[in-house]
Amino acid sequence: MRITLEDAMVEMGACARAAKAALAGAPADAKNTALMAAAFKIELRKNDLLSINAADLARAQNESEAFRDRMTLTPERIAGVAAALREIAALPDPVGRIVREWTRPNGLRFQRVATPIGVIAIIYESRPNVTADAAAIAIKAGNAVILRGGSECLSTNMLLARWFREALAEAGLPADALQFVETTDRAAVGHILSGLKGTVDLVIPRGGKSLVKRVEDEARVAVLGHLEGVCHVYLDRDADIDKAVAVTLNSKMRRTGVCGAAETLLIDRARLADLYAPVAKALKDAGCTLKGDAAIRAIDPAVEPAGEDDWSTEYLAPILAVAAVDGVQGAIAHVARYGTSHTETIITENAVTADRFLSAVDSAIVLHNASTQFADGGEFGFGAEIGIATGRLHARGPVGVEELTTFKTVVRGDGQTRP
Amino acid sequence: MRITLEDAMVEMGACARAAKAALAGAPADAKNTALMAAAFKIELRKNDLLSINAADLARAQNESEAFRDRMTLTPERIAGVAAALREIAALPDPVGRIVREWTRPNGLRFQRVATPIGVIAIIYESRPNVTADAAAIAIKAGNAVILRGGSECLSTNMLLARWFREALAEAGLPADALQFVETTDRAAVGHILSGLKGTVDLVIPRGGKSLVKRVEDEARVAVLGHLEGVCHVYLDRDADIDKAVAVTLNSKMRRTGVCGAAETLLIDRARLADLYAPVAKALKDAGCTLKGDAAIRAIDPAVEPAGEDDWSTEYLAPILAVAAVDGVQGAIAHVARYGTSHTETIITENAVTADRFLSAVDSAIVLHNASTQFADGGEFGFGAEIGIATGRLHARGPVGVEELTTFKTVVRGDGQTRP
Repeated sequence: MRITLEDAMVEMGACARAAKAALAGAPADAKNTALMAAAFKIELRKNDLLSINAADLARAQNESEAFRDRMTLTPERIAGVAAALREIAALPDPVGRIVREWTRPNGLRFQRVATPIGVIAIIYESRPNVTADAAAIAIKAGNAVILRGGSECLSTNMLLARWFREALAEAGLPADALQFVETTDRAAVGHILSGLKGTVDLVIPRGGKSLVKRVEDEARVAVLGHLEGVCHVYLDRDADIDKAVAVTLNSKMRRTGVCGAAETLLIDRARLADLYAPVAKALKDAGCTLKGDAAIRAIDPAVEPAGEDDWSTEYLAPILAVAAVDGVQGAIAHVARYGTSHTETIITENAVTADRFLSAVDSAIVLHNASTQFADGGEFGFGAEIGIATGRLHARGPVGVEELTTFKTVVRGDGQTRP
Repeated sequence: MRITLEDAMVEMGACARAAKAALAGAPADAKNTALMAAAFKIELRKNDLLSINAADLARAQNESEAFRDRMTLTPERIAGVAAALREIAALPDPVGRIVREWTRPNGLRFQRVATPIGVIAIIYESRPNVTADAAAIAIKAGNAVILRGGSECLSTNMLLARWFREALAEAGLPADALQFVETTDRAAVGHILSGLKGTVDLVIPRGGKSLVKRVEDEARVAVLGHLEGVCHVYLDRDADIDKAVAVTLNSKMRRTGVCGAAETLLIDRARLADLYAPVAKALKDAGCTLKGDAAIRAIDPAVEPAGEDDWSTEYLAPILAVAAVDGVQGAIAHVARYGTSHTETIITENAVTADRFLSAVDSAIVLHNASTQFADGGEFGFGAEIGIATGRLHARGPVGVEELTTFKTVVRGDGQTRP
């Protein structure tokens, strides 16, 4: 009898589901031991990982340089992966945490207690470090996890997943709590999104627009969306010029391929004359290409024109669209129209203007006088993250271990009945 | 040109969306004024409401007694509706609440601030008081709301909705923040569930199994599910007999039509001999019909047999399925197999056994020595609720004003850039 992909996926879901209760009830020590064991294996067997990653890279000659860079493991990156696992192991256990407690006049004592979500499926693209981070964060939060990585890194990811399963077993936890989809068949994703309803409690897509769109269209289970970040820097009329230069440069150029990188610069028309030149110079010196609206091109004709599409483009490259706006209200309106509710920052010395921006901009993360590249679980102090959620429910912004828990309400009484 | 239902629904969504920002930024006073004004109108125009409700009831002659009872408004119930609105107005404003704040070593100051969700669609069945409660809770949390009530109460609901829109306008808020679907065409629900993707941020179904199933199957937007409550009372071997009788009776019979009513009684086989008789007597005296498994029928042959379906039936009636189980582990296993993750209680004087049950039972609400009928936002101290969420994300248990907010992270710096 031939085993179909559907059979295999159902079996995988059943295995994860069966491991769920053991993970949910696992003591913190067991989960941490598993993460430490995985870190140890990754360091010890570094050369196996490098050579299998080299084989994946050899098959990916036609991919872009940026893509291949994200796929690539180096000894330093491997050390970083292991270090991240140890950091996650060192985090406080999020399960059983009492989020809130209160007592009612009738004597009933209420506790809102953090519990695991259950079975989480994570569908992601190229980076192999996501395999380790996602597995570790999900396990730390007491969840069983189904991982589906990008096909280009299949061999690297499979090896990492196998070591995680070994590590779980060594810690006395079911290896089946980690399932890795060992096929590049895209139909497998469809099975996760609709066929595993009732088995998978949450799907987290992490990747480009087309992946997230597919997940949102097809999912019959809850989704924690990680949409693109068309992040904005707004330089207000009361901006400090040094902060404006430093924060804009860092927001755009520190790393251009991350979702928290700025893609649009908005400048208050009232300060265009003195703010644009130094900011543009710093960006150009760092290798950034600018695209401007009419107002920008009027003062810097060498800049290429920005079209309507540019305002909603996530370049993930050293390109920045620049527009003049009419004060903070103009900036708020521009972000509302083109933004992706990810991360935006205002540079101003005026606290009232800052509060207006922070309050009116409806994004997961809003900053004042700080770089958009702080949109990161590590920078938030979460230790690690699976991504930046841009949906509106459950979690917004960095998704770390706490965000992969839910809660129940425990009520203790002494025989109370309701009148 | 004929206006199609689809056009009308799109227009309705656009109106709600346009009102969203005004509601999100509304001062607490304005929202509370609107709720107080609605309460005032409802009391002042009580007779209009009673006569239109009588007309709805006259058209619903073929419905069951329980259904007609839920539809019915009385002067007392109307006073209750107005009182609930005033209570919701008196609650602290959930928007802008600082959920958490922390500072990082680089000096960045983080605040997790509660914000409205946006546009919430609430699809519910017969009770007209839900129209008022749902509107009030959504508005209090700064959301625009689209209401779709049960067709049997259409006239009553339309009148209530119209008064709310008047009240919003009188408080200086856009009347369009409340939209009521003024048709009984079931296709309207389909438009909300899939056609208004990008407009509606959250759908809350409140009603029976078939409604919730339809919403879950068709929704292309986030859903806060309110599934049925097959709630369990477990009488442990260390149960106090008086508490066992009182809590079981209250859990089943206080009101049989609410989702927190017990539907299954589990009794530790070790105490069947002395616990069953007094509990069964109290239930029967109160008019409850018992259905038993083989062990129950062995000691009480007059009880009709419970079939496999009974363990997963939400009777919402004075009927209780009773089974003997092997201790707390047997109870946990029964709940895991047949429960709906709503509300379960354990009656025991043994704290260790209680903790085992409270920890292992994966329901939104787990109680110790207290009635399942405490599964209610008012009893939790939330003031009011839209229902009891049985999904796993964002909110579990009673959904009150805080549960209808989400959050954003506000980060304040002084020019920080990320290394």
